[in-house]
Amino acid sequence: MTHTSEFNIFHPEPLLIVVSGPSGVGKDTVLQLMKERGKLLFHFVVTATTRPIREGEVHGKDYFFISSDEFAKMIEDDELLEYAIVYNDYKGIPKQQVRDALASGKDVIMRLDVQGAATVRKMAPEAILIFLTTESEEELVNRLRERKTETAEGLNLRIATARQEMKRANEFDYVVVNKDDYLNEAVDTIQAIIHAEHHRTHPRKVNL
Amino acid sequence: MTHTSEFNIFHPEPLLIVVSGPSGVGKDTVLQLMKERGKLLFHFVVTATTRPIREGEVHGKDYFFISSDEFAKMIEDDELLEYAIVYNDYKGIPKQQVRDALASGKDVIMRLDVQGAATVRKMAPEAILIFLTTESEEELVNRLRERKTETAEGLNLRIATARQEMKRANEFDYVVVNKDDYLNEAVDTIQAIIHAEHHRTHPRKVNL
Repeated sequence: MTHTSEFNIFHPEPLLIVVSGPSGVGKDTVLQLMKERGKLLFHFVVTATTRPIREGEVHGKDYFFISSDEFAKMIEDDELLEYAIVYNDYKGIPKQQVRDALASGKDVIMRLDVQGAATVRKMAPEAILIFLTTESEEELVNRLRERKTETAEGLNLRIATARQEMKRANEFDYVVVNKDDYLNEAVDTIQAIIHAEHHRTHPRKVNL
Repeated sequence: MTHTSEFNIFHPEPLLIVVSGPSGVGKDTVLQLMKERGKLLFHFVVTATTRPIREGEVHGKDYFFISSDEFAKMIEDDELLEYAIVYNDYKGIPKQQVRDALASGKDVIMRLDVQGAATVRKMAPEAILIFLTTESEEELVNRLRERKTETAEGLNLRIATARQEMKRANEFDYVVVNKDDYLNEAVDTIQAIIHAEHHRTHPRKVNL
């Protein structure tokens, strides 16, 4: 008796995972902990930016620091999964690194703001979209305040934006609450989501 | 500042989970280990049967032992989620216990053969259907042989049936390989699936 093809039904495809949510929900902290745990083989997406490199930053690790001309060419060639202007500088996600990582069999994970996640949904409908949130508005406000990088006006703007963004949670596949002091639980849930998605009978193959 | 409704977006619904797959893949073993782990609050469905109670069996734990008249009434009242004739006796799953468990907020989990799972899909499209399989046909055959309860003909029939049933895996939501000596891994995956499904932005509310 030989192995019959009927029994080889499990062919996991590498996934494209987006962790998003309003400013202050803890996207970076969550991704940082996932990196530290290192249990699963991920490619963590590096963003390309036109802003100058700062002291201590590493090209290819923190960002890909590229010229405005290079960035413009990527836009023209439709080689960006999504991009935005942030404080007069451009930042965006080169498609090629995502393609390369998926082709090597690695799951790709990226953090994006809510608008960026919506763009990825259009560009790659097969992406797994996770909406990260806090347990309450107070929790979000406290976290933004603790940053101390915001002016009072800036803070109000972020809160107003967050309220609007919460209404878009239903455009996502999953919602994960990143509750104060329960960071590990949030990461457990994200890892469970990724684990489960690898066992879907109809895997969502990403084409970029 | 008060808790705003926008932030209370996480309302997990209790789930109806079906673990299915060909005879010999290890459905009972998997469910037994889930019971022993006891991490998550589940209602494990008890099947109703018309066959006489055997020594050592407990009514309401191993099965609900009911009369043929009682069973006939449940069929007439459409009070069975699915039922079948097994060796001249009827067995089936009373809807009421599933309704009660879901109403109490508990996830409901049941093991079913592939035909039964297909019936549940029709009756409760919101159910999460998990297809359990082995890594190869050899593995399945070896397990069936180890049972020593089958005649050679019975064994061939089960293998032929399993081959047909493998073709129906794509009617399920997830596929989990219960590999020899990797039982814990299979249960980890099932628990990850359940964990993830609780975080869907569009929970599948079961109506029975």
